[in-house]
Amino acid sequence: MRALGFHLLIEFYGCRHGILNDVGKIKNLMDEAAVVSGATIVESVFHRFNPHGVSGVVVIAESHLAIHTWPEYGYAAVDLFTCGEDVDPWKAYEFLEKCLTPRSTITKEIIRGEIEQNQGEVQYHPTLSRTEQAVGKHL
Amino acid sequence: MRALGFHLLIEFYGCRHGILNDVGKIKNLMDEAAVVSGATIVESVFHRFNPHGVSGVVVIAESHLAIHTWPEYGYAAVDLFTCGEDVDPWKAYEFLEKCLTPRSTITKEIIRGEIEQNQGEVQYHPTLSRTEQAVGKHL
Repeated sequence: MRALGFHLLIEFYGCRHGILNDVGKIKNLMDEAAVVSGATIVESVFHRFNPHGVSGVVVIAESHLAIHTWPEYGYAAVDLFTCGEDVDPWKAYEFLEKCLTPRSTITKEIIRGEIEQNQGEVQYHPTLSRTEQAVGKHL
Repeated sequence: MRALGFHLLIEFYGCRHGILNDVGKIKNLMDEAAVVSGATIVESVFHRFNPHGVSGVVVIAESHLAIHTWPEYGYAAVDLFTCGEDVDPWKAYEFLEKCLTPRSTITKEIIRGEIEQNQGEVQYHPTLSRTEQAVGKHL
């Protein structure tokens, strides 16, 4: 099997509360994490909620990085979803852990998009029906 | 334990190729999925890549929905990350499955942010140091 993507789900517990509520700092951290990992940033969107909490996503050419913070619990949920050989999500993870200084961390690694090794790319004919596409797959 | 968030990771295999490469349709689908689930859309960002593939994220007040497509494999990776009692990510899932018509689907359910039941909200004092924050937790 070949994997198209790699997804790292991270729970950062016991982070500094101030930073978790600072949308500017969180955006800068996530953008920097993307750069550190070798990713290419396409667009970043970040928002601060009332009374507290920040949500943000960095869309990268190699998928996305996301964060949601609960300052009241010192908790941040981070997703590092990458594809390709040129991006190392673990570098982003190490960078974020160093900056957010959590007391404890839980990570899960999930493989996304498992494709059979002998499965070539499907022929892409936008004008054909779905059945014809399936036939085209064997061309 | 109490969970702050719920994350549904979905692999849609064997989708119609045309729709997976249509950034306008994918954006509309994801925005609609957010509405169907009961979420409040904060911002949507979608991009089409060359030669093919779409990436997009809908930031919602209750976390985010994301999609990355590989039209050449008929594959889409979807994330539905929600929090709170008012959003039902399974409704978004059912809506997307109906629209993308995958031949097969794999889903994983991940609990995000497990907090002790007896853990009250941490006192939030932005002017205190991290050590003082920790002390404040027990106030």
